[in-house]
Amino acid sequence: MANERERERDSEVVRAAAEAVRRTWRDPREDLARARLEATCDASKLSAVLHGGEESLRRTKALSSLVQAQPWASKKDRYFLGREELHRRGLEVAMGIRDLVRKENLTYEDAMTIRKLVDLPGGFELHYGMFLPTLIGQGTEEQLDAWLGQALSMRIVGTYAQTELGHGTFLRGLETTASFDKLTDEFVIDSPTPTATKWWPGGLGKTATHAVVMCRLFLDGKDLGPHPFVVQLRDLETHLPVQGVEVGDIGPKMGYNGVDNGFLRFDRVRVPRAALLSRYAKVDRDGRYAPPPKANAKSSYATMVVVRTDIVKYAGEVLSKAATIAVRYNAVRRQTAPEPGGLEEIILNYQQSARNLIPTVAKSYALIFMGQTMWDMYGRFEGQRDSGDFSALPELHATSSCLKALCTWVTTAGIEVCRQSCGGQGYSLLSGLPSLYTNYVQNLTWEGDNTILCLQAARYLVKQLHAILAAHRGGRPQPELAPTVAYLAGTVSDDPFLDVSRQDYEFHDLLSFEVLDSIMAQRCLFVAGQALDNLEANARRLDAEPKIGEGAAWNASHVIMVKLAKCHGWLLLHRSFHGKIESLRKEGKVLDASLRVLESLYHLFTISHIEDSLGDFLEGGVLAPSQSQMIHEATQALLLKLRPEVVCLVDAFAHDDYSLNSAIGAYDGDVYNRLYEMAKRSPFNDTQEGPAWDDLLKPFLIRRGRKAKL
Amino acid sequence: MANERERERDSEVVRAAAEAVRRTWRDPREDLARARLEATCDASKLSAVLHGGEESLRRTKALSSLVQAQPWASKKDRYFLGREELHRRGLEVAMGIRDLVRKENLTYEDAMTIRKLVDLPGGFELHYGMFLPTLIGQGTEEQLDAWLGQALSMRIVGTYAQTELGHGTFLRGLETTASFDKLTDEFVIDSPTPTATKWWPGGLGKTATHAVVMCRLFLDGKDLGPHPFVVQLRDLETHLPVQGVEVGDIGPKMGYNGVDNGFLRFDRVRVPRAALLSRYAKVDRDGRYAPPPKANAKSSYATMVVVRTDIVKYAGEVLSKAATIAVRYNAVRRQTAPEPGGLEEIILNYQQSARNLIPTVAKSYALIFMGQTMWDMYGRFEGQRDSGDFSALPELHATSSCLKALCTWVTTAGIEVCRQSCGGQGYSLLSGLPSLYTNYVQNLTWEGDNTILCLQAARYLVKQLHAILAAHRGGRPQPELAPTVAYLAGTVSDDPFLDVSRQDYEFHDLLSFEVLDSIMAQRCLFVAGQALDNLEANARRLDAEPKIGEGAAWNASHVIMVKLAKCHGWLLLHRSFHGKIESLRKEGKVLDASLRVLESLYHLFTISHIEDSLGDFLEGGVLAPSQSQMIHEATQALLLKLRPEVVCLVDAFAHDDYSLNSAIGAYDGDVYNRLYEMAKRSPFNDTQEGPAWDDLLKPFLIRRGRKAKL
Repeated sequence: MANERERERDSEVVRAAAEAVRRTWRDPREDLARARLEATCDASKLSAVLHGGEESLRRTKALSSLVQAQPWASKKDRYFLGREELHRRGLEVAMGIRDLVRKENLTYEDAMTIRKLVDLPGGFELHYGMFLPTLIGQGTEEQLDAWLGQALSMRIVGTYAQTELGHGTFLRGLETTASFDKLTDEFVIDSPTPTATKWWPGGLGKTATHAVVMCRLFLDGKDLGPHPFVVQLRDLETHLPVQGVEVGDIGPKMGYNGVDNGFLRFDRVRVPRAALLSRYAKVDRDGRYAPPPKANAKSSYATMVVVRTDIVKYAGEVLSKAATIAVRYNAVRRQTAPEPGGLEEIILNYQQSARNLIPTVAKSYALIFMGQTMWDMYGRFEGQRDSGDFSALPELHATSSCLKALCTWVTTAGIEVCRQSCGGQGYSLLSGLPSLYTNYVQNLTWEGDNTILCLQAARYLVKQLHAILAAHRGGRPQPELAPTVAYLAGTVSDDPFLDVSRQDYEFHDLLSFEVLDSIMAQRCLFVAGQALDNLEANARRLDAEPKIGEGAAWNASHVIMVKLAKCHGWLLLHRSFHGKIESLRKEGKVLDASLRVLESLYHLFTISHIEDSLGDFLEGGVLAPSQSQMIHEATQALLLKLRPEVVCLVDAFAHDDYSLNSAIGAYDGDVYNRLYEMAKRSPFNDTQEGPAWDDLLKPFLIRRGRKAKL
Repeated sequence: MANERERERDSEVVRAAAEAVRRTWRDPREDLARARLEATCDASKLSAVLHGGEESLRRTKALSSLVQAQPWASKKDRYFLGREELHRRGLEVAMGIRDLVRKENLTYEDAMTIRKLVDLPGGFELHYGMFLPTLIGQGTEEQLDAWLGQALSMRIVGTYAQTELGHGTFLRGLETTASFDKLTDEFVIDSPTPTATKWWPGGLGKTATHAVVMCRLFLDGKDLGPHPFVVQLRDLETHLPVQGVEVGDIGPKMGYNGVDNGFLRFDRVRVPRAALLSRYAKVDRDGRYAPPPKANAKSSYATMVVVRTDIVKYAGEVLSKAATIAVRYNAVRRQTAPEPGGLEEIILNYQQSARNLIPTVAKSYALIFMGQTMWDMYGRFEGQRDSGDFSALPELHATSSCLKALCTWVTTAGIEVCRQSCGGQGYSLLSGLPSLYTNYVQNLTWEGDNTILCLQAARYLVKQLHAILAAHRGGRPQPELAPTVAYLAGTVSDDPFLDVSRQDYEFHDLLSFEVLDSIMAQRCLFVAGQALDNLEANARRLDAEPKIGEGAAWNASHVIMVKLAKCHGWLLLHRSFHGKIESLRKEGKVLDASLRVLESLYHLFTISHIEDSLGDFLEGGVLAPSQSQMIHEATQALLLKLRPEVVCLVDAFAHDDYSLNSAIGAYDGDVYNRLYEMAKRSPFNDTQEGPAWDDLLKPFLIRRGRKAKL
């Protein structure tokens, strides 16, 4: 009772202070709810557009509910898992998804959706993603009989071992060799140098029992280049490596630590001739080689295009997650009262926060739409391919190369913009932002290093330019150009473009596709011209040929070629965004207000990019220096216009709380209570004293203290 | 015997293949040794310059040897430690350093050097870094008597609790309150809202027994703003939180996980009046308040300047580590043979790699020199201060604010450039690059959020400009300007600057300080003019006053103000780099060849920055669009010139292998063997079967396999 009275007195003492503090306190949930009321756009309509229809959206929601009921899918402890726990959980997740798919009779697409929702890659990734597809795509019927059943039933687990310590990009340089032994009808697989060690394959470390191993095939000492072999790595009963195989885990990475990426060395390991996947290239009993048909190269190009299209789509999904978290947090976080005793300002109302985040939302939309546009392109190609027409492949390959590079760069940088815009909370794993970054960034490297892919795209662009210029100089008719590069014909004619720099444009004139497209395309042409000049100047300087894609002059032009590919990619993003709006307008499914907001978002996407890269546009004379101010003003005006819409614009991405797993990015805006509740679950808080008290801190502090007291 | 004969036959089968592979294989150690021979600069002379003299360099080497002999300092398992192990190791390191310092009778500087070499911050960081200095700086003699002895002997461990869940930057908004109870002569400390929870203090989670807690002081219901209180948080014998205190760990972060950053809530906790640190502000027995003298504000500004100078210096150290690792790896990594069967090219010879990395080396030098220049500035200020002259403080504060922001941004972005330039290996923790990034990036936020600091610096710059313009308009003599901002007077006079844009400059003309300085300063003036125009236009538009540093018009000008501060910072970096070279030239200590290399590095620093920000220079008319090509060519020419020097230029940073702890960045260049040896120590490799075989994989694979066989 006395105690209770004391507490009451305490309350009285602090009352005035508590009231003063609460007077300027606002519930962040109310701030977010209010923001939703201010918007004019319709998040659910936009969601359907972003998700390819309402049905797909409903399906994702249903699958999310289903998966959240599974114990293996819990994310409550996700940010507290150490590497071993992550690895184990990753396997449990894969097993869980497998069981769930069977039990609920789910489709392949459903399984992929669930995989993304749970978002914990593990040791089986490459079994499904590379081992099975390679087996199916490159194995003969006998080979499928031998392995496919076991692989589908998970009696064996495979991975795909191509990259080596010393080689990633340059396939011809792989150092793992497979030499045919005619006497025994076997190949001997060998790692003759330290750099021949296979390095990186997912699941190779401790999970896979088998691998498709890319080896340089040697027949009678003759090097026939890289070929795929199916090799058993571990005993199926003991999981111990087989004789001659050294295999293990390559250690922790910046992210993606559920996966046991591995290393692999061969000390003269014998495999039967049937280990060579032989649907295309073959070796017969006498060691004679039958090379793959040419069409095979084309179909493997097509496979690359699909993989890269997926990466573009995924880039948009990841960036939109980061944008959702950062926008919601910035829309409720308050800091600094304009006047003493006043309410503090919401930080998204500060200009710099809006400049960081709203263009990032626009980029997320642009990437998602680009993924859809690429699927459409690929669909058209499939139709042509089935009637034997591969003519669209070079364009498709160049497009997917440059967009894989550009979109993964945009997403990587964009996640960090989002994370850094959340101040200290963005540094906490509980925000969900650090792991988005650390799990994502390897996308810059895998499936083609970005710089190399830009050079491949530039090679295609420069080839088209050479053809255009040659026809022009020779007075011949212009070559037929693929749709995405048709604008390059402008290099020999000024007609197609508006001369924006010489006219008295004001900023509202910028809000026109013709004007913006003219600006974006002319920038590409200017950089393309620089690239050609550079190549020729380097050829003269180095007394080399101005060869496209190789040689000293080309190598001395890499920087401008990479830039050219990026500029081309930005043009494609800009056109795809606009194209999407046009088709929505035609379909009439999206309401006027939402369409207007989407259009402003598209304007902001392109104009803020022009502001970010202003140097290019001024250098090329596409814009006059005096027009720069117009670009700045247009950017600011669009930011103000979109500010009331942006919370709904991120709601439209439809990432649910389970998918985001963020203390600061949940739908309800209750960031502070959620941070506190999540932090309390940190394993360090299992005991009040913490994990170092008993044997470390206690002896140190108490011993010292006692000594000092004496 | 049979077996041996079989192995021999295997060797024969693979011989041709092995020879073919080895023919184009090169030992990376030889590549790096050769690179060192090609350089003309003297790494050891440059080292002495970077480290402030040969003596300091020798001392660092000696301390590194000493510390490497300590078991607690081992880095062999560093990248494999989970969070709890990191935390424990962090405490052991701090205890180990403490013992070593005593045993070897080391100085405070030695201890700081060792801390950086071991590079594992732990739970005691804020005890040494904030608790002790605050106690000493703000406690009365009685208060020091009460706490200092116990704190120095580690009977108590303290931290500094200022930031709250809801408040970082805006100190006046802190929500933890201390209300005076006249009746009992006590303060009652309270957290009236969820956002009042203290959040982030290092060591608060599970280590600290005490804290300096910043609370809003309330006397008779009157808010007197934030004041520091010493509060006991945990029982000294049991380490359990004391009554009314809730304290714990905030969970894992992107990096820095040795430290137990914590949360803290008070439920009406009583502390004696003496808990208020009272050297400056005081409360007497009757609850009357004596505010701190004005000079105190100045001295706390000076403290901030020192902390920020340290951050600038540290930015250079961290970036130079990343640059060392990336340059060494890029100097031995080979990829893609120009012709079939030829030797593959070293990737640093590819233009894009050089463009990424050599300017990053130049930035590292610039940041390190900037740190030295700032120390010199601070030293001059201390001299003046001791004679009561605080006039240099505003300039120093603005300089340190804008450079803290700019340098941490440069380092953050630069580490990622280095990491991404190492392809896949840069994603492995073993490269040392991911942890450099994840441990570093909180520097953007702490000790002043970068955006806020830029706004503070801009406020100073705009004030100077207003004074200059007012004097000019009024026909009064120009105000006296501090040295770093004297160039702003150019805003009312064109005299001091060369008109580079109108003359026929060629690229070798750029290699002059006068020309470059003119370009850099004019860009600042142009942006400053834009900033002033923007502020006035916003004032007109919003019908507000064009107040500097606050108000609606200022808030609507944040983006341009941040830009202004950054541009000013780049000018300072450029001038400091050049100033360093001039003083070296005068001292005559550095040999001609090294000085020439350093000069080229300085040229690259400034010119590659101009290339990166070309839009500003063209927009401002500082350069004409037609001069852009000259900037591109100058950048490329400098890259070619510096390419043979760059391995020695990073050697000069003198980061030893222990300090770098990188598989790919060690001095000898033996990257592949080291990656392999480090990976084998991964705990996953403790058993051949891995951590998931027995209870997860085995039942899954073998059960399924058996079922499938039936």
